[in-house]
Amino acid sequence: MPSYDWERPLQDLKELAELTGGPDGARRLAWSEDWRTARKWLLGKLEETDATVERDVAGNLWATIPGASDKIVVVGSHIDAVPNGGWLDGCLGLLAAVEVLRAHAGETPQVTLKLVDWADEEGARFGRSLFGSSAFSGSLDPEGVRGLRDAEGISIVDALAENGVDLGDALGATSRQDRIAAYLELHIEQGPVLEAEGVQAAAVSGCAGVQRHRFRFRGQSSHAGTTPMDRRRDAGLAAAQVALRVEEVGAQHGGMATTGSIVLFPGIPTAVAGEAELLVDLRHPDAGELAAMLADARAAAEAAASRRGCEFEAESVWAIEPIPFDAELVAMASDACREAADSDRVLASGALHDAAEVARVAPTAMVFCPSIGGISHASEEDTAEPDLIAAIEAFGLLANRVLST
Amino acid sequence: MPSYDWERPLQDLKELAELTGGPDGARRLAWSEDWRTARKWLLGKLEETDATVERDVAGNLWATIPGASDKIVVVGSHIDAVPNGGWLDGCLGLLAAVEVLRAHAGETPQVTLKLVDWADEEGARFGRSLFGSSAFSGSLDPEGVRGLRDAEGISIVDALAENGVDLGDALGATSRQDRIAAYLELHIEQGPVLEAEGVQAAAVSGCAGVQRHRFRFRGQSSHAGTTPMDRRRDAGLAAAQVALRVEEVGAQHGGMATTGSIVLFPGIPTAVAGEAELLVDLRHPDAGELAAMLADARAAAEAAASRRGCEFEAESVWAIEPIPFDAELVAMASDACREAADSDRVLASGALHDAAEVARVAPTAMVFCPSIGGISHASEEDTAEPDLIAAIEAFGLLANRVLST
Repeated sequence: MPSYDWERPLQDLKELAELTGGPDGARRLAWSEDWRTARKWLLGKLEETDATVERDVAGNLWATIPGASDKIVVVGSHIDAVPNGGWLDGCLGLLAAVEVLRAHAGETPQVTLKLVDWADEEGARFGRSLFGSSAFSGSLDPEGVRGLRDAEGISIVDALAENGVDLGDALGATSRQDRIAAYLELHIEQGPVLEAEGVQAAAVSGCAGVQRHRFRFRGQSSHAGTTPMDRRRDAGLAAAQVALRVEEVGAQHGGMATTGSIVLFPGIPTAVAGEAELLVDLRHPDAGELAAMLADARAAAEAAASRRGCEFEAESVWAIEPIPFDAELVAMASDACREAADSDRVLASGALHDAAEVARVAPTAMVFCPSIGGISHASEEDTAEPDLIAAIEAFGLLANRVLST
Repeated sequence: MPSYDWERPLQDLKELAELTGGPDGARRLAWSEDWRTARKWLLGKLEETDATVERDVAGNLWATIPGASDKIVVVGSHIDAVPNGGWLDGCLGLLAAVEVLRAHAGETPQVTLKLVDWADEEGARFGRSLFGSSAFSGSLDPEGVRGLRDAEGISIVDALAENGVDLGDALGATSRQDRIAAYLELHIEQGPVLEAEGVQAAAVSGCAGVQRHRFRFRGQSSHAGTTPMDRRRDAGLAAAQVALRVEEVGAQHGGMATTGSIVLFPGIPTAVAGEAELLVDLRHPDAGELAAMLADARAAAEAAASRRGCEFEAESVWAIEPIPFDAELVAMASDACREAADSDRVLASGALHDAAEVARVAPTAMVFCPSIGGISHASEEDTAEPDLIAAIEAFGLLANRVLST
């Protein structure tokens, strides 16, 4: 058994929060000066492990401890954060991975051990999540993202170039797929389930699929004071009705269904809304259920539009199919959670992770630990220390077992 | 009977549209260069009437034909328009009033006849409607509007000064109230009722009261993918539910109830809305019914908020009590509509008009003509010519009768 210190990643996390956080939360926006500072700090930590560090053409950072076999086990996560983010999202998994490398420093493990820090998991600046891991899996479409700009109008192409990444070359990262036997990632749940159930660490069965659509309703804008109630074609009320129905669809199918954005036009108190846009985000780990949710939501929208004399059209904004993780690795993760945290809980992730991209091309598993109040992407993001330690231990046990099989 | 030409105001309206309109609609925003151009054109028309023209300290334009008695009958409306507005809103009534003066040019009517062009009825630039007429009635609070700025940051104080109006002096216009026996105004309905009923001209019983409130819901923003449906505190869905209930409240009380603005925070597809703001606009000609509508809407909001674990607070944005017109003048207006347009229809106005301000201090009546499709405040605003002519005739007959009583 290598010499792990389950508490050391906590000290590392606090050090990183000191360096790139503060009362307003994390400052580690991908491709920014702050992010480069965080990565420079990470390089210092990796020096303790004697690992060989390289960057791939998509900006992902890799650290390697060569093993007896050229079969590869990868541990990792991401150091980037949303603006004003928390101290655990991404970093927890990355520092737990550093600890795995530290524990094997100076050894020659049975298989080659690699750490990866995926570039731009959050997509907070350009709206494109999982940049580095999707370049690695090959699902990135460089031409599809070439036109993206940040809030200040800076092109993604220029921001990447500033960080030594040529967008046109990014798919070269797919060459790293070879010989990967397992990818393991620890992450906070970012939801309230584990905390509510009193579970310290749980295996993740896979990532839910997502169907995100823009529902557009076109009625007739008219004067709020002169248009009788029975002569209105109120697109805003059509959208409101559908939002409520979408909520029911989520509950009925055991998935997640959210309408976090409703925009009305002209959007003034003195006019009936002539147009409304509703963003519908549907998630389910089962592809059939997800398709049924979308069909139900669309049918509700068509019915509401027709009842209110509105036109309806739907536009797909983004979609990803459910991605199940590797059954054998998930079972091993569950065993590790039982040992470290006395937990048999296996849950699907409703949030996306780099692991979902990796799972397209290599056997993958994840471990989750609770998030207090389910809060993430905010400076209040936190997890009780005993839970963090238990989850880091579960992750370390899992890594050990995978390394020795 | 004075020599009216019921079709002449149509020629005037077309001339004005030629001068200050175009394919994108009217360009007569109050206090602008275009508005001053329109008023200069109006002065030309008034020259044909031999009336004495003056401006009051609030920027309202008055034209006077002295009569045998110093009792005053006022006819008028407003020449200002919303940006990209129509060719009839305001101007129709003003040009019909010009025709009344023209018909009496060179005479000494029994009572003194005045025309008024109220300044800034629309409030389109600074968000404060009925500026000139409320200065006249005395309901304007100069200090309450002093801080207003337009979209370019220009202060209302400076815009008024540019037009020779000192905000601090505006209430001096109240001195014009003396001896006014009647105020009469012709306007387009700006709603679909008269067109649907095939009515060419109708008497207006008064203006509906308005209660406009901002309903604010505070729940908890959380991750769309990780927050189970039964653990959400979705402020957006609380607002959606209330919007639908507000619609029912309008129908139940025979009033108008509109939710033309819903704003969600953070307003992104990947987060449950933690906050929502709903603007609720309620209108009814009866004060008791209006109060009951507000109570019902508030109760619905409190229930929805409580059911969804949200906090609720309401803030009054603006309110005006129902303003009934003068019963005797309304009956005379109805007689005139019967004679000119074979119509007994009397309706309440859901939109506000300068007449509502004048009615606070002098006997008032209005005549409405239909709006095609109920459309107004848009370049498509229109009324069939025979309807315009019938309504102008009804207004002329009404003015004659009031002048001779």
